[in-house]
Amino acid sequence: MVRKNLIVLLTDFGLSDNYVGVMKGVIKKINPSADIIDLSNEILPQSIRQAAFCLFTSYKYFPEKTVFTCVIDPGVGSNRKILLVKTENYYFIVPDNGIISWVIEKEKIEKIIWIQNKKYFLDNISNTFHGRDIFAPVTGWLTKGININSFGKEINNIVKIPFPKPKIDKNKILCEIIYIDRFGNLITNIENSLFNSIYEKSNLRKIVFREKKVELKKSYDSVEMNQPLVINGSHDYIEISVRGKSAKEYFNCKIGQKIPIYIY
Amino acid sequence: MVRKNLIVLLTDFGLSDNYVGVMKGVIKKINPSADIIDLSNEILPQSIRQAAFCLFTSYKYFPEKTVFTCVIDPGVGSNRKILLVKTENYYFIVPDNGIISWVIEKEKIEKIIWIQNKKYFLDNISNTFHGRDIFAPVTGWLTKGININSFGKEINNIVKIPFPKPKIDKNKILCEIIYIDRFGNLITNIENSLFNSIYEKSNLRKIVFREKKVELKKSYDSVEMNQPLVINGSHDYIEISVRGKSAKEYFNCKIGQKIPIYIY
Amino acid sequence: MVRKNLIVLLTDFGLSDNYVGVMKGVIKKINPSADIIDLSNEILPQSIRQAAFCLFTSYKYFPEKTVFTCVIDPGVGSNRKILLVKTENYYFIVPDNGIISWVIEKEKIEKIIWIQNKKYFLDNISNTFHGRDIFAPVTGWLTKGININSFGKEINNIVKIPFPKPKIDKNKILCEIIYIDRFGNLITNIENSLFNSIYEKSNLRKIVFREKKVELKKSYDSVEMNQPLVINGSHDYIEISVRGKSAKEYFNCKIGQKIPIYIY
Repeated sequence: MVRKNLIVLLTDFGLSDNYVGVMKGVIKKINPSADIIDLSNEILPQSIRQAAFCLFTSYKYFPEKTVFTCVIDPGVGSNRKILLVKTENYYFIVPDNGIISWVIEKEKIEKIIWIQNKKYFLDNISNTFHGRDIFAPVTGWLTKGININSFGKEINNIVKIPFPKPKIDKNKILCEIIYIDRFGNLITNIENSLFNSIYEKSNLRKIVFREKKVELKKSYDSVEMNQPLVINGSHDYIEISVRGKSAKEYFNCKIGQKIPIYIY
Repeated sequence: MVRKNLIVLLTDFGLSDNYVGVMKGVIKKINPSADIIDLSNEILPQSIRQAAFCLFTSYKYFPEKTVFTCVIDPGVGSNRKILLVKTENYYFIVPDNGIISWVIEKEKIEKIIWIQNKKYFLDNISNTFHGRDIFAPVTGWLTKGININSFGKEINNIVKIPFPKPKIDKNKILCEIIYIDRFGNLITNIENSLFNSIYEKSNLRKIVFREKKVELKKSYDSVEMNQPLVINGSHDYIEISVRGKSAKEYFNCKIGQKIPIYIY
Repeated sequence: MVRKNLIVLLTDFGLSDNYVGVMKGVIKKINPSADIIDLSNEILPQSIRQAAFCLFTSYKYFPEKTVFTCVIDPGVGSNRKILLVKTENYYFIVPDNGIISWVIEKEKIEKIIWIQNKKYFLDNISNTFHGRDIFAPVTGWLTKGININSFGKEINNIVKIPFPKPKIDKNKILCEIIYIDRFGNLITNIENSLFNSIYEKSNLRKIVFREKKVELKKSYDSVEMNQPLVINGSHDYIEISVRGKSAKEYFNCKIGQKIPIYIY
């Protein structure tokens, strides 16, 4: 019986090289009716944290039983494990490097399989492209209906990386720029709901970021062009933006930077 | 009854972030058999004119009943309308900002719906990502067969932006560089047929662009390498090219520039 | 009878412009059930050699009867031929410019058709975008089940470009950097098996590249961060890499460069 799962790819392979296309070829060769979508293939090379954030803020928008095949894998060719994680609603095929850490804070794990059964790999395994030789064929076979227990043995412990929480000290929130998008919006690690509750309790409702006053707004066009604002972000985390401009350039910020926000 | 429409995405979201992938997830969650193609997701951030040109020069190559879901939306979160436009042959889900202005100069409008029925939106609507929260689910439901009248009420007036026409004064055509492609070809706003008729009537058939003589040719290899030419472009508008090189760099041009072409 | 072939696109059109999207539209208009995958659309503009290498190292991972539609076509609009090449396992729709030269060193040709039947083209053929006007509709009709003989007449001779072989002189291999990927890995033209056999027979097993000692390793993490290594590449050719860094920048290399590797 053919299960009809959607397949979602998340990689740092970029789209110039043949890597993503070849992975799709391998999947299609095994499962011709596979339905494959790209989440992103432009994760910064080997940035496990960026991939973790992308996966964490995306997975719940996909249909149940979606298979997320994630190849951000600086340990390729080493003895790092490759995992098939079955959660309540989804499947994740990932290197054991922490990439699903933040997903599984919300999504209940049902079973973790350490993928080792070479029957479901390509015949020749390279040392540098397990995306093609292991991740893709396993994805193909899983979506053809192979039972998850066939791929290897169950394990319990996997690598986890902690979500960076903001530090709150009176009127100061020390946040981290956890992501910057194409438009230059600065996505912080402060949940919208947390920020809003602190803001509501403040006296002056005055917000200062990098020595500039910024106002909390409901839409970009609530401020003049080229003016900064704070907004409840679509990833559920507060974002610093500049209307019609890159906040990254305006505030000269980088991913990973820790910056205090003051609310008076 | 399931209507089988092709879905085409046109956005300025880029492919690095999760935005496009998540929109596809939302569509697939509602309509698992949805067939989705990217027209372009690399429209310059918030460039309504670039998107309008891309849509205008592309739509007719797609199958009848294709749904074009276009999210170039600087007004997101404001009170700008979101429209479902049914034309003779296609559906367009667009912000009311002029993006379909040039399409509807050729393609007859049958009905314009102001999308307002929250039943077909995601439960929580962010202020910054209506692509995910409104455009995508409406696309999913429309292609599942929901009647267009269910999405909101009919309206008649929408925002239009005028197509920039070239100005002709004797032997001088003041054109605009309306688009520059990956190869650096300069796409003008002069229709091939208009240019050809002026050229045919000229005495010397001598063309001058930016103080350089350029010849009208049928193919790139009709001139030497690194030499400029004028060619009847595939978008139906005259293009200035340089064989094996970027005309953008050769002539030092930008999108939106107005430049005279002289035909003697 | 509808044959179910996978369609794979390889172009230098990039993803910013509408070119790739429109080609998919044309294919879908003819064959609504077409299943289309991108191999890469980011081949360097007009780089036939880069496309040849991409195709050569990718095709065998795709299902039998896949149709590879390749539009890297600096001769568009000239009298260069457009070919439909049927090999033992695949179909290739390509300009006659050498792009399939390296594929057909491995994959047996069954028939070569010079595509000329305008019945299967769009009605109006531009001079600059045969991808849309010829390659795409022919792809659509081929996958709808039209017999390959219907597209034109059989020919025997096509343009071939020789694969650049490394030159071996005692302990020196003069290699060419045939490709550089997103990560900055330098892919050489030395087959893994050839390199390994020379290495095995060497006395000291000492490798020198650009005056730096590099060791042959099985995985990136066998060396310290920022250290170079040689590795059996996934394309079947030896690669020079730097752990966690771009070897392209570390060694200051370009595609096409010829560099000696010394094995003592």
